[in-house]
Amino acid sequence: MGRLSIPHPHRLLLPSPSPSPLHPSSDASTIPRRSRFSPSAHRQIRSELSLSCGSHLIPHPAKVDKGGEDAFFVTNHNGGILAVADGVSGWAEQSIDPALFSQELMANASGLVVDEEVSYDPQALMRKAHAATSSVGSATVIIAMLEKDATLKVANVGDCGLRLIRRGQVVFATSPQEHYFDCPYQLSSEKIGQTYQDAMVCTVELMEGDIVVMGSDGLFDNVFDHEIISTVSGSPEVAEAAKILANLASNHSKDPNFDSPYSMEARSRGFDVPWWKKILGRKLTGGKLDDITVIVGRIISSSDSREVGYETT
Amino acid sequence: MGRLSIPHPHRLLLPSPSPSPLHPSSDASTIPRRSRFSPSAHRQIRSELSLSCGSHLIPHPAKVDKGGEDAFFVTNHNGGILAVADGVSGWAEQSIDPALFSQELMANASGLVVDEEVSYDPQALMRKAHAATSSVGSATVIIAMLEKDATLKVANVGDCGLRLIRRGQVVFATSPQEHYFDCPYQLSSEKIGQTYQDAMVCTVELMEGDIVVMGSDGLFDNVFDHEIISTVSGSPEVAEAAKILANLASNHSKDPNFDSPYSMEARSRGFDVPWWKKILGRKLTGGKLDDITVIVGRIISSSDSREVGYETT
Repeated sequence: MGRLSIPHPHRLLLPSPSPSPLHPSSDASTIPRRSRFSPSAHRQIRSELSLSCGSHLIPHPAKVDKGGEDAFFVTNHNGGILAVADGVSGWAEQSIDPALFSQELMANASGLVVDEEVSYDPQALMRKAHAATSSVGSATVIIAMLEKDATLKVANVGDCGLRLIRRGQVVFATSPQEHYFDCPYQLSSEKIGQTYQDAMVCTVELMEGDIVVMGSDGLFDNVFDHEIISTVSGSPEVAEAAKILANLASNHSKDPNFDSPYSMEARSRGFDVPWWKKILGRKLTGGKLDDITVIVGRIISSSDSREVGYETT
Repeated sequence: MGRLSIPHPHRLLLPSPSPSPLHPSSDASTIPRRSRFSPSAHRQIRSELSLSCGSHLIPHPAKVDKGGEDAFFVTNHNGGILAVADGVSGWAEQSIDPALFSQELMANASGLVVDEEVSYDPQALMRKAHAATSSVGSATVIIAMLEKDATLKVANVGDCGLRLIRRGQVVFATSPQEHYFDCPYQLSSEKIGQTYQDAMVCTVELMEGDIVVMGSDGLFDNVFDHEIISTVSGSPEVAEAAKILANLASNHSKDPNFDSPYSMEARSRGFDVPWWKKILGRKLTGGKLDDITVIVGRIISSSDSREVGYETT
């Protein structure tokens, strides 16, 4: 036990520190090759900062045939909009396909980005897209928009998430909202669900070189922040980083011995192996099998954005 | 080991859920009794939401005589400004009192709140207060301002922190910035330090009933978020909540057996007891002795704010 043996006083910053080994490369050679919305790369209209995005989705192993129940879109409209919806899988127990709600919600949202009322307002986009959705079901939803003044505005309902990584560390992270363990806040076809009014809405100022990592809980339940940092810092290409992160989440989700963020959270909530296994020194571990959606965006100066585009895979 | 035995699918939200037991009381009887800046309670000028604040500071046990090296201020100017600076204690090794810089920085900042250039801009206040500070030293700093449109704007350099608690859960949290373990980003008298330009700046939309908990790392290194939630949810009075949280942090900081956020973080960075103690099943535990500053603010409707004020202890 004993006292901590590490120095307690905050350390002075010493002269001429070498750059952090985690400091992301600032080269802007992150030129995705294709877009869901346009086959060619896009020129950006923003004068200062632009967003270069890549994405990758891996369905739940049991839901590969239908593509899983996550839905997302990425567009360069107004400088950049990223959105993820995760269909609440419990609806399957009522013979309702959980993918229908999340897919219609994202389709409606991507169609509504041209609506002037939702310009630079992700919460308004959430409201209108939800109102336009007629499928039965529910979904957790996160929408992030790059705003005119080089800020990122985020509206979040539930346990999708976003991390902003700057100079090799997470400087901003969303917090999941839930009713109780494994029951997140959710936009729903039923009145009992949440609405845009329940969204956590915030804005964070961006700097060139910042990296945005957004995803469904399939990412954040299976991958630690330090793994996200080392992945995006080591990968110069956003689409490649998204793919690596999704594969890492997928591998962890299938590993019964991996002590995942999800298993650690479960133990902290009182879930664990039976007592007779505990006596044998065992504990609840394992990743969480789930749909995994990852979007990675890099903030670059517009002068470097001659061929900035969006790639979805 | 084995797979998780808890249900994987996201759960549906069932009809008529009872309110969370952690849901904070919405009564607005949180009327602090006195203010550092005015002996009487203040009427608020904001039309929609107001901030009722209490605060409590407990110095490091070895620094009680001089009051520690944290400094803070709370004012109702423009609806509410909260600020904490934590003097970097490593300066003592160079025979410089670490309290001088943090105290002068906060004194300058509290004097500058009337400067029109810093209205509703905590980063500008940080810039001007830093430029006006002539003491040798450095400090971590966080400044939060309640803005006109019922949002909270935060500028943060280093490992002071802020949590926004809504309906019994953390919906927003700052992330600490550091060069390496125990060496946080810091505003400094030396050029090697950080500036306002290194601040993480973000804005979060507020709702009535939201609770803001802000503090130096002496709070967040010793108290878990779930403890903060249960404390502020159970305490109807902000000054009382601040005092309870500071005392909890102080007690944990002195407990060699408490597995604190700080000791868990230290172990995750590779610090631990010697190998021969590990063999005996021991691990690095304990709180972190430090100055502890806690500010608790509750967002209330202006119609309930006939006597809203600020208490500092």
